[in-house]
Amino acid sequence: MSSQRKDILRRMRLYAVLTEKHCRRAWFEAAGMLLKGGVDVIQLREKELADGELLARARALRRLVDRFPALLIINDRPDIAFLSRADGVHVGQDDLPPEEARRLVGPDVIVGLSTHAPEQAREAESRGADYVGVGPVFATATKGYAAGGGREMVARLCAATCLPTVAIGGITVENCRGVAQAGAQAVAACAALCGAENPCEAARAFREAFEAHDERDA
Amino acid sequence: MSSQRKDILRRMRLYAVLTEKHCRRAWFEAAGMLLKGGVDVIQLREKELADGELLARARALRRLVDRFPALLIINDRPDIAFLSRADGVHVGQDDLPPEEARRLVGPDVIVGLSTHAPEQAREAESRGADYVGVGPVFATATKGYAAGGGREMVARLCAATCLPTVAIGGITVENCRGVAQAGAQAVAACAALCGAENPCEAARAFREAFEAHDERDA
Repeated sequence: MSSQRKDILRRMRLYAVLTEKHCRRAWFEAAGMLLKGGVDVIQLREKELADGELLARARALRRLVDRFPALLIINDRPDIAFLSRADGVHVGQDDLPPEEARRLVGPDVIVGLSTHAPEQAREAESRGADYVGVGPVFATATKGYAAGGGREMVARLCAATCLPTVAIGGITVENCRGVAQAGAQAVAACAALCGAENPCEAARAFREAFEAHDERDA
Repeated sequence: MSSQRKDILRRMRLYAVLTEKHCRRAWFEAAGMLLKGGVDVIQLREKELADGELLARARALRRLVDRFPALLIINDRPDIAFLSRADGVHVGQDDLPPEEARRLVGPDVIVGLSTHAPEQAREAESRGADYVGVGPVFATATKGYAAGGGREMVARLCAATCLPTVAIGGITVENCRGVAQAGAQAVAACAALCGAENPCEAARAFREAFEAHDERDA
């Protein structure tokens, strides 16, 4: 993996999931505002687009993200990640296994894996993952979870792996500090970021909440 | 491409699209019966499965198809085709472009392209396709088309390309002879094959209808 990718992965705090139907603005405008607001990662998650359109969108985002110190990650699809020269691909437990995604994208591309139990987090590294998603932390309408595992689950899963961890599910500016305190390196949000009235300000508010946490810890 | 793949592609007449929801039996049993009945190609088309399950199904079919002089083709997904060692991948006009699918699967794997107009059929070869689908020929509930282009469309599209042609859309044992007479090398069916009470007998009935056409032509 390139040292730039590694660096961003190691210091990432804010991970934006971009899904058009949750955006209040044009998706591309929302993406630009998120990047300007300082997100470290944009994950393109579109499950209902035709593949040709998905690839075109990934390529447009590639050109945009290139202008920022941030990563572009494609949800679910290693083929789209490869063809769009994305920085990474993110798979869930029911998607292509991380080992198989790795075979498609090669050694230089980040592979992320969603985990929901300590055992899954523990085995993620040996399965070839470069970071793990941890969730759902709270109830979230985005994926239809009625309840999450809370900060306790974040703590258990993050303790089970040495990989960078990204907590996800119902995370907001208000609760993200507690999630970081529980052990997550980064937090991810979809509706609270790309669905904000002003995604740039939303990203900044998340960062400030994190920094307040860092200062209190120091 | 291996000479065996090329040979089957050049002589294929009967192309079965396998979709679980159209099957009256377990999908794997239906696949075995189709192969026993003499289909030249099985295309796995599942748009609603999780990717992990789709890959597992493709691999199970790979082991089954290996026992017959037939090809396994995966609909839409070059990544799944690559990982399952399928013989080919089939893309539509809104899917990943055939040039991009080729980049993922390499030179030895068949790439098929759906075409709906002579211009699309004409450019298919230069875009890296190894065969073209031609349709919809007739109205079909499988894909929700209320009308098709008929035998005239088959004739125009098949005349526009030197690649092997597979007509698709509402094709049955009763009308397949006319479609072949219009110029299609092969015919594809989903509901009329995997959805038959006895897929083996259905495949045989298709082949007999074709042979009758061949004899009449001779």
